[in-house]
Amino acid sequence: MDAEIIAVGSELLTPFGTDTNSLYLTGKLNALGIEVRYRIIAGDDHDRLTDAFQNALRRSALIILTGGLGPTEDDITRNVVAEVLGRPLRENPEIRSRIEKRFESLNRSMPPNNLRQSLLPEGAQWLENAHGTAPGIWIERDGVIVILLPGPPRELEPMFESHCMPLLERVGGKERIRTRVYKIIGLPESEVDRVIAPLYTPYQNPATTILSKPGTIEVHLRARAASEEEAEALLGELGDKIELALGEHVFSAHGESLEEVVGMYLMMKQLTLAVAESCTGGLVSERLTRVPGSSNFFLGGAVCYSNELKIRLAGVPAALIEREGAVSKTVAHALSEGIRTRAASSIGVGLTGIAGPGGGSAEKPVGLVFIALTDARGTSVREFRFPGERQRVRYWASQMALEMIRRRVRD
Amino acid sequence: MDAEIIAVGSELLTPFGTDTNSLYLTGKLNALGIEVRYRIIAGDDHDRLTDAFQNALRRSALIILTGGLGPTEDDITRNVVAEVLGRPLRENPEIRSRIEKRFESLNRSMPPNNLRQSLLPEGAQWLENAHGTAPGIWIERDGVIVILLPGPPRELEPMFESHCMPLLERVGGKERIRTRVYKIIGLPESEVDRVIAPLYTPYQNPATTILSKPGTIEVHLRARAASEEEAEALLGELGDKIELALGEHVFSAHGESLEEVVGMYLMMKQLTLAVAESCTGGLVSERLTRVPGSSNFFLGGAVCYSNELKIRLAGVPAALIEREGAVSKTVAHALSEGIRTRAASSIGVGLTGIAGPGGGSAEKPVGLVFIALTDARGTSVREFRFPGERQRVRYWASQMALEMIRRRVRD
Repeated sequence: MDAEIIAVGSELLTPFGTDTNSLYLTGKLNALGIEVRYRIIAGDDHDRLTDAFQNALRRSALIILTGGLGPTEDDITRNVVAEVLGRPLRENPEIRSRIEKRFESLNRSMPPNNLRQSLLPEGAQWLENAHGTAPGIWIERDGVIVILLPGPPRELEPMFESHCMPLLERVGGKERIRTRVYKIIGLPESEVDRVIAPLYTPYQNPATTILSKPGTIEVHLRARAASEEEAEALLGELGDKIELALGEHVFSAHGESLEEVVGMYLMMKQLTLAVAESCTGGLVSERLTRVPGSSNFFLGGAVCYSNELKIRLAGVPAALIEREGAVSKTVAHALSEGIRTRAASSIGVGLTGIAGPGGGSAEKPVGLVFIALTDARGTSVREFRFPGERQRVRYWASQMALEMIRRRVRD
Repeated sequence: MDAEIIAVGSELLTPFGTDTNSLYLTGKLNALGIEVRYRIIAGDDHDRLTDAFQNALRRSALIILTGGLGPTEDDITRNVVAEVLGRPLRENPEIRSRIEKRFESLNRSMPPNNLRQSLLPEGAQWLENAHGTAPGIWIERDGVIVILLPGPPRELEPMFESHCMPLLERVGGKERIRTRVYKIIGLPESEVDRVIAPLYTPYQNPATTILSKPGTIEVHLRARAASEEEAEALLGELGDKIELALGEHVFSAHGESLEEVVGMYLMMKQLTLAVAESCTGGLVSERLTRVPGSSNFFLGGAVCYSNELKIRLAGVPAALIEREGAVSKTVAHALSEGIRTRAASSIGVGLTGIAGPGGGSAEKPVGLVFIALTDARGTSVREFRFPGERQRVRYWASQMALEMIRRRVRD
């Protein structure tokens, strides 16, 4: 069964209009073995939406329209679908009483406009909205299923989950689609492809896609089978080969972020961490503390933007900064040793560099970053030259700092 | 002139497929007075793309297809467009020699597949690709313009900018579209709407949209006029009224982020800042140091995740933590005073709270955050209870800390 998603709303046709509902719906449909073949965005315009819906009816067995179910004149989805299908709208007393009750419970009187939301095309089912006034609508005609869902994700997602998934499971695809994402660090995209192309090329199923993300290469596998177990088995067969071939460069096989993996290793080995960062301005600490429970392994750190704070918070000798410059191998070394001592942590990490756009020189260009790691065995420092603009340099620096921790802790 | 954008690529129909090219193109087209009426995503499938392109030809005067111009069998955009338009593909010797030279300059031999990229539909113009091998294609037929662009943004964007914009300017819309975004903090969406609805309702042009973003409400205005100046004048007329009505809650009228605005105020007044943060784990520092030149106003800070580091890095008295708990008004107070003293900054900020999911209690629930600000005039502390999950609590806490700085520095 092939699906088409039509997102309705003029705001989605502006330069700011990202349609996240379609991504959510695609994931859910795929899990049921249903492929999405077209995603359409149309504005709040009667004739244009009519055209888009007629095209969809001609070519797709499952059509999901999102948005345009609100109480105002602009909200035309219900009307267009009723018109095109030739199913007149009738007021549904049960929906009406629910909307009225909802307003009562909020101690507000219902604006007359909201009555539109109690209109239902003849022969349609309505889907309860636990988080808003607009009910969803489910219509079947000549083997085609049409679903209308409200636009706000907090209304759409629970409605789809609790009402549409069970119905679709019944009528839906006989196949199941499962995906797996491997995250890779330390190899460029072309090298990843060179290594694994001989492995994945023989397979049509799973399908393999390689994506380049900031600081990470992702390999996406996507398998179809009669059951979830069989699809997982297909993923495992190719996936294990890919993981073996890429070896230590694979840091995650189940969607975990690099900071989650680092946190997991630190907790497993009961180690603690402190960070003194300059050019990354707190990004390494911020990423580590995104992980729930990070207080178990992360003690804290210093954001030593000024030289004064490098001295006061991380104990870097003033003479060293004077002699070598704030962006230097020895200062990175002193930052990681200093913060480790002050925090009494198992591991200390120090970063110093030039994120740009200003502050670079011929000798020390923008993108130059030193990262040091200290543990009981001593300190190692690596020098990097990251290309690109400020945020990219900062992100890559944080990524390589986390990678240095991962490597040290894993071994 | 109305446009339709068709993004081609099966990877765009997965749950991970965000189509950022269309947003970029929409912004550029709008600047030329061209409205985007449909955005379509279709997979690398001959029949389905044919159907989508035929629909577009029937209804749109400008059709832009992105992606599917690569060298492999999967890349079908060129073929489908040539077929539907009845314009046979012919090898273009000039394109061929450019592709060959590109490979030469990279010291690689050209795979025979890349020859496909030198094929051009009869009567079409080609557009030079400064960053890849696939040229763009420009075709005019019966008053309809069809443009084919490569998928990677680093190839598409410069190509569109240097080759398509000048051509579209000539044939394009007679109107110009300009937008303005007001960013608002400290008022809920419904309150913003209540205040400004009487102002914007009388205007069809500019059109007004209110969007809720994390920690911010945005009001988007969009004006059409015969010239950019007139469009700007329309934006100014309504925009000034809106800005006046929302007053100090408007922190940005030209797209600046809150951290940029805070940095601007600090630099203007030649003040410096240091931050001691616990629950936000470095997020406040990280946001401030995203701003280029932030070393002019941001000295640094302490990420005091553990109690030990609250004591060592920010000088919070151990007895205070013992007596009041790490998450308390007095510890926030001590953090901001302590970091201000250690950094010798004009302003100190301290944050402590419970981001969750663990660590909450009946008395001190998840979402409880204290934020303190110290300057020469003294210290003030605010108590917040942010709803939602960990990242949301952290983001809101950083947002309110920045807002407290903005208010203090602006006055």
